[in-house]
Amino acid sequence: MTIAVDAMGGEYAPYEIVKGAIKAAQEFNTEIILVGKRDVLYVQAGRHLAKLGMSIVNASENIDFHESPVEAIQSKPDSSIVVGTNLVRDGVASAFVSAGHSGAVFYSALVSLGKVEGIERPAIGSIINMNTTGPVLLLDAGANADCRPGHLVQFAQLGTIYARELFGIDSPRVGLLSNGEEENKGNHLVKASHQLLKKTNLNFIGNIEGHDITNGAVDVIVTDGFTGNVVLKTLEGMGDTFLKLRHVGRLLSRAYHLQGHDLLLDAGLSSLAKRMDYREYGGACLLGVNGNIIIAHGRSQATTIKNAIGLAKRTVDRSITHKIKEGTYEQTSPSE
Amino acid sequence: MTIAVDAMGGEYAPYEIVKGAIKAAQEFNTEIILVGKRDVLYVQAGRHLAKLGMSIVNASENIDFHESPVEAIQSKPDSSIVVGTNLVRDGVASAFVSAGHSGAVFYSALVSLGKVEGIERPAIGSIINMNTTGPVLLLDAGANADCRPGHLVQFAQLGTIYARELFGIDSPRVGLLSNGEEENKGNHLVKASHQLLKKTNLNFIGNIEGHDITNGAVDVIVTDGFTGNVVLKTLEGMGDTFLKLRHVGRLLSRAYHLQGHDLLLDAGLSSLAKRMDYREYGGACLLGVNGNIIIAHGRSQATTIKNAIGLAKRTVDRSITHKIKEGTYEQTSPSE
Repeated sequence: MTIAVDAMGGEYAPYEIVKGAIKAAQEFNTEIILVGKRDVLYVQAGRHLAKLGMSIVNASENIDFHESPVEAIQSKPDSSIVVGTNLVRDGVASAFVSAGHSGAVFYSALVSLGKVEGIERPAIGSIINMNTTGPVLLLDAGANADCRPGHLVQFAQLGTIYARELFGIDSPRVGLLSNGEEENKGNHLVKASHQLLKKTNLNFIGNIEGHDITNGAVDVIVTDGFTGNVVLKTLEGMGDTFLKLRHVGRLLSRAYHLQGHDLLLDAGLSSLAKRMDYREYGGACLLGVNGNIIIAHGRSQATTIKNAIGLAKRTVDRSITHKIKEGTYEQTSPSE
Repeated sequence: MTIAVDAMGGEYAPYEIVKGAIKAAQEFNTEIILVGKRDVLYVQAGRHLAKLGMSIVNASENIDFHESPVEAIQSKPDSSIVVGTNLVRDGVASAFVSAGHSGAVFYSALVSLGKVEGIERPAIGSIINMNTTGPVLLLDAGANADCRPGHLVQFAQLGTIYARELFGIDSPRVGLLSNGEEENKGNHLVKASHQLLKKTNLNFIGNIEGHDITNGAVDVIVTDGFTGNVVLKTLEGMGDTFLKLRHVGRLLSRAYHLQGHDLLLDAGLSSLAKRMDYREYGGACLLGVNGNIIIAHGRSQATTIKNAIGLAKRTVDRSITHKIKEGTYEQTSPSE
């Protein structure tokens, strides 16, 4: 299996990206293609390339976080994002991982790979791993800020397939994120989506609320990309606060010479902190395009990139894109 | 000052509500009116009534959490929520505190007190106290699931007044919750609201993201009631998870006989846990109606109710409703 990695994307590129790719090549049985400026990458990765089965594909341009996704994709055909996506389109790589401009990755995938037939809006499926019962898939995590009810039904279908394969759950419980659990609660979008979801053959458990995200009540959380993005970043912010405090706790633990009784660790706080850390899962999967695309966090460092490559590998191993193509999608009229 | 308290509202009514009201009467210099079934309340509070300056106003009906707010308000004129709101309308009480059906409290306030002139949609202003720099006001926390851009501008105006008075900040920083900080990020509602907010004389700092809620970047967070409610409940869910783990930590701390070195406390984790606990602030204020209404959490126990009464007292002390009435509101066309 060959996985292409955007070596130029993200706040810590290229150094941390290359470091993470090398870790992944060592740990997983995968060939890695680093996509980016050949001379820069060769200096950093050169001595590892041959023995780890890694290679470089040159991409002379970079897309900056502040650029308009559509314009950037059109005006920079030799950017690492476009080149990487095309490697998947051309069958050179089985998946592409990028911590670069997620909007640009999304548009590049739409243009280069196209949507799976029947899917109106591909979505970003992000894994939240904060409850003790297991991970939860939330989609859309940010690709589609404004949605129609029919789109949310398709997110539920895509999420069901991904959660089934990735988490190994036969019939994932699908919840619709709302401001109340009763059927009549929600904004216009949610109320209409609820009625459509009820008619599907999915394991739709109804509306869920914000506190259900972390209490294990559900396997797949369906929401529009605006709400999904806000919720994920809210959790991330809490995670950051928590990690800072854990650090303080460790320093104090040392000051008291209590390493042997590290209460924070004992109490499971540390495992929560680890789960609250977005770096653990590494990435989110773009679901509904003709190819495997993993969007990693813009602040990804080496371990996150390694984990994102691991997620890409599992996504390929489980033939997710193929299973999505096989899925039958209820067509909803554009007016819904 | 007299504050009316809905003794029948919330999961732990009437026992915890009455207990909290008694605590508040002891701690604050306020007269409390308990609103509810006289015979029930007399049994519980009777011996405290005279010496604490408390009284009972009878309300023979209850509104259940599952009832439709509009129907319940119309069909139960002698419910504790309607009776309590009317005490404010009639000038008998300066404020009303309820942990009952928040939708019913909202509609009752609209019907009984009416909206402040110029305000299209009153909003629920909820206080989040999770960052070290100080509390943050989020509105709308759930009253208006579907909003127009003009509504969000008014939320920003209401929030500015409340934060100025309650937090003592001259020029509160107002942020618009979005899925990206750039001006062009957001759903249709947020993009249009951003353009309107830029033209106001508020201290509008632009779009903020989910992680900014807890990092002290902002004093007032403006969002639609759907997103606001989801975000608050997401934070609440995290807080619950955290509190559970803190409890485990304390048990382990005792098992190790390390009470003297309670690392969890030392590390500031406990203060975070305390802040993460919605019970600390007690309630949210309904802003934009002609009277002071505090909506407490449905799971409120005595301390939360006491704190909610404290919030009501500060709201009255600072003449928030009067200052909102004095505020000049930019009229926006209904189409915006």
